[in-house]
Formats: sequence, C-alpha cells, structure tokens
Amino acid sequence: MDEFALIRRYFASGGAARGDVVLGIGDDAAVLRVPEGHELVVTTDNLVAGVHFPVTLDAESIGYRTLAANLSDLAAMGAEPAWALLAITLPEADENWLERFSRGFFRLAMQHHVALVGGNVAHGPLNIAVTAHGLIPAGAALKRTGAQPGDAIFVTGHPGDAAAGLKLIQSGHTDLRHACVQRFCFPEPRIAAGVALRGVASSVIDVSDGLLADLSHLLEGGNIGATLELAALPLSADILRMETLGAAREYALSGGDDYELCFTVPQNRLSQLDAVAANSGCRVTRIGTIDAESGLHMRDANGVVRGVNPAGYRHFS
Amino acid sequence: MDEFALIRRYFASGGAARGDVVLGIGDDAAVLRVPEGHELVVTTDNLVAGVHFPVTLDAESIGYRTLAANLSDLAAMGAEPAWALLAITLPEADENWLERFSRGFFRLAMQHHVALVGGNVAHGPLNIAVTAHGLIPAGAALKRTGAQPGDAIFVTGHPGDAAAGLKLIQSGHTDLRHACVQRFCFPEPRIAAGVALRGVASSVIDVSDGLLADLSHLLEGGNIGATLELAALPLSADILRMETLGAAREYALSGGDDYELCFTVPQNRLSQLDAVAANSGCRVTRIGTIDAESGLHMRDANGVVRGVNPAGYRHFS
Repeated sequence: MDEFALIRRYFASGGAARGDVVLGIGDDAAVLRVPEGHELVVTTDNLVAGVHFPVTLDAESIGYRTLAANLSDLAAMGAEPAWALLAITLPEADENWLERFSRGFFRLAMQHHVALVGGNVAHGPLNIAVTAHGLIPAGAALKRTGAQPGDAIFVTGHPGDAAAGLKLIQSGHTDLRHACVQRFCFPEPRIAAGVALRGVASSVIDVSDGLLADLSHLLEGGNIGATLELAALPLSADILRMETLGAAREYALSGGDDYELCFTVPQNRLSQLDAVAANSGCRVTRIGTIDAESGLHMRDANGVVRGVNPAGYRHFS
Repeated sequence: MDEFALIRRYFASGGAARGDVVLGIGDDAAVLRVPEGHELVVTTDNLVAGVHFPVTLDAESIGYRTLAANLSDLAAMGAEPAWALLAITLPEADENWLERFSRGFFRLAMQHHVALVGGNVAHGPLNIAVTAHGLIPAGAALKRTGAQPGDAIFVTGHPGDAAAGLKLIQSGHTDLRHACVQRFCFPEPRIAAGVALRGVASSVIDVSDGLLADLSHLLEGGNIGATLELAALPLSADILRMETLGAAREYALSGGDDYELCFTVPQNRLSQLDAVAANSGCRVTRIGTIDAESGLHMRDANGVVRGVNPAGYRHFS
C-alpha cells in the first residue's frame, strides 16, 4: 500500500463533518471558512517516539495524544476546536498500527467535532506533527499574560496522574483500568473549561511540562510572583494509592503530560468560578495566589513559605 | 541552550510583520484574523532527512525548501501566503545549523510576506513539519478537479532541473552557480502564477512528485485523459548542457522536487494566457491537451502517440 492508498484507507474519513470545510483532504490544500466576527486560533505540536512517549505505547494512545496535546493548547486560549492537519513520518506502513493510530485520533476528533482537513505521510523515524485550528469570538482569546497581584491561581483536574501513569507504563503496567495509566494514554483536553473561562480568567496556560514550570510562564514579564499552598494541591485517590503523599505532590508539581489548565482569576470575578466549575466537567481547585513580588514560593502544611525551583522538562537542556 | 532559548534566538523574529496577526509566537497558540470575504487555505508537509533531502544538504537550503514545499501547495490553490507554523525535531541543538536553517526559512518567508506564528522544537531524528496558511477571496480557490476535454495543459518553469540538480548534489557538486543545483536548493514557489490563474485555469496542481505523476492526479475521477507533446517539453539550457535530450526529457517527466505548477485552461480562456505569463515571472509552456478518453499518452517528435506510465515517487510503494 503506497502513501496515497494509505491516506485514503485510514485518514480520508476526515473526522467530523463540518459546514465550514469548503474543500477537505485530497487537493493541494484545504479551503476553510472562518465565521464572521471570529478569530482563528492555531497551534502545532510534534510527538517523537521515545521522547514524548515510550516506543512501545499502544498506537491508539499515540493517535489520541497527538491530537490531545494540540487541543489542550486551543483550550488554553478559550477556543473551540474546528480543524486539524496531520503530518506523520512512519518507519513502515504497518496496517495494524495505522488502524489503531487512526482509531485513537478520530475518537478524540469526533468528540470535539474536529475535521481532519489535510496531512502528509512520509517514510522515516516515527514522528507525528499535528496542527490544530480553533475558533473564538474576536477579542475573546485567553492569554498567558494578564495575571495581577492578588489574583487567585487555579488548576483543573488532578495534575501528576499522567506522570504517575507513565511510570507505571514504563514498568510494564498498561492496564487502562488504572486511572493514572488511562490519564497518560487518553488525557482529556479541557476545552469546556477554556470556553467557560472566557471573560473570567486573567491568564491561562496548559500544563504539559509540569505545573510549576508552566505556572512560571504566567509570571514572565509581569514583575509578579506566586505563592502556592502545598496542602491545596488536588491529588487523586488513584495516585495516593500508589505513591506516598510526598511523591504524589512531586508528581503534581513537576510531572509532565497533564494537559490540565492552570489559570488566574481576579478577586472580583471569583464569584463566577462556580459556573466555570459546573461547565468544565472537571474539578477546579484553587492552589495559590499571585504576588506583587517576583519569585515562585510554596507554603507548606505548617505555614512555612519557601522559594521553589520551577524546573520542568526542557528539550536540549 | 534549551528549547525556549533556542526558539527565542532563532525563530522569534517571526518573519514578516503582518497586521492580521493578533497574537504570534509565545503563547499556547496564535490568534489570527482572516479578512472579510476571504477563505483560509491550509496545507502541511514534512521533510525527513535522508528521504526528502540528502543528510548533508546545507541547512539554509533545508530551511528554505521546507517552507517552499508548503508555499507551492498554496500557489496551486491560487492563494496568497500569510502565516506559517514550524514543528522541528533535531538530533542536537547545533547553533551553526540553526542559524543557517532559520536564515533560509526567513529569506523565503520575507519574500512572500509570511509571518511565523507558532511552532515547536523537540529532540529526535531530523524532521521538519511546516503548516502554511494562505488567503483567497471566497470561492476563488483553484482545484485539482475541473479539467474538461479540449482544455490545454501547461506547466510553469523548467521541470526536471531540480531532479538533475539533486543528482549533481548527490555526486558532490554543490556549487549554487549551477542553475540546476540552485533550483533544487532554492525552488521558487509559483505564488504569482497561482494568483494570475484565478478565474483562468480549470484545474491546477503543484509538481512535486514528477510532472507525469502529478498531471495524472488532474485526470482522476474526471473520466478524462491527456496527450502530451514530447517536443513541447520546456527544457532548460542548463539541463541540456549536462544531460542528453532523452535524459533531460526523462527528468522533466518523472523527476521530483520541481515545485512548478501544472494546470489546464479551457480553449475560450487561452487568450488570457499572455497576461498570466506576464504576471507569473516565469516561463509558461503549453505541453498538451486534455482528452475525452482516459489514459495518459505522449506524442513523440514523429507524431507517433503511445501510452505512458505516470509513475512518480511514492512513499512505501
């Protein structure tokens, strides 16, 4: 099966049917319609075998995660997903692998009404690049900049579960009934939370390199800092069953691959948080406060405040 | 230098400054404005070291070509380029390589007023995926489908030069003063030709896998065929200096990496071709005619017509 047959067989279904796709897969490029009064939100992310996921990971999870990583970026802008393109490099045209990969990809695509409108399949070491497009009313995009001293800091879901799941997978445990394994393999991009945060959050980022590392991006350039409450970190029952409290907190603060949202809310909008939580379909937890002085601090259970190092995963560092 | 420092140093200049970029590099995603009455044209292509280019190719050419391949797809739709995203996987953070790569990428970006609005840098085997966005007045996009019997077939430039240039490079000849080497390393996406063909061409494709292979895509699903005139193939003086006439024709018909446009024009619009040629900044040559019966044929210099096999480069075939 050559690349054209392979694209027809596994990818031409195209995911969700959308009226704004004027021309989809099959021409030199796709033609798309952005509705009046809206802006286009675009992101790209690539996943490399052995770097972003274990080489033995089930292809269904690889297909799902490669789209999820991009939809999570759209969620952090408050955008609603619309279209995706997929550039995939494969060592061989393994039909079983492709069948499972496309199943995972399209499962998430259908869930968020995403149309696959283009792509490319090439021969080489496994590498998957997705570009995702979302739509947002003009001017409503959420940004990383904008947090002010006194703003409350929140996080969705249970950060750390994905990293704990990855550890399980690396030790050979791949049973998806374990919530942490499930969370690594099939993270839920927080699209509904992002939409609910329009007009509410003062800044938003998605947590993919670790909570501390990503939170520190919200502080950049603003001459502001943050103090986190260690006891407030939302830890799942699942991670606490497999790890000590200390280790679980370490995963929550520094583990990657969460695809949760970390965001700040001004005091005068905190009353809107109940509505956000109700519409997000996930837990939303206050974990700290933005400070007027720069630096990242942690208040432990005894009320002692210490500086912390926001090291996250960095390529080439 | 970690990935963030590397992005700031080599990529954050962002290419062309554009008023339609609401938010560029540096957040979770870019925010972009599509002008009223326009549609968005999107394509993605990835280049793999050792597959799409020799591993020893100058990084300036790699940077240029990876964007050129995508702009060529936009040209084939008649779109004007606007924004690009770059997902790059690198074996090491080689600063000299990155400096040359970004120089080549941005040279072409500035030439076509393209803003780099997002991307990702990861660690792994060299692989570069670009997603390019163009704009076109609503309804004006050129497509692969639409050719009718009697339509004339054209090609821009001198197909074959790039493949001949690649052969030179593979044999160690990398002097850019040789037009064929130049053509492989720094192909010119035919943006102006694509724009000039709006409302004129009945179908368009970009020639990247070889003229015959790509022309055959214009015939798919239309119950039509084509007859090419062997003597009409536009061969450059440069390729004829290094190859026999027969070999030069072989390169022109089956060589890849041309990034020329192949298109069809109805008889009643042929009078507009002079204007197209004048606005395209490149040679435009009639090479054949669309037939009412399917199949690809070639008329040789003696007037004898034979069937030809449109084999082009296919991954996994």
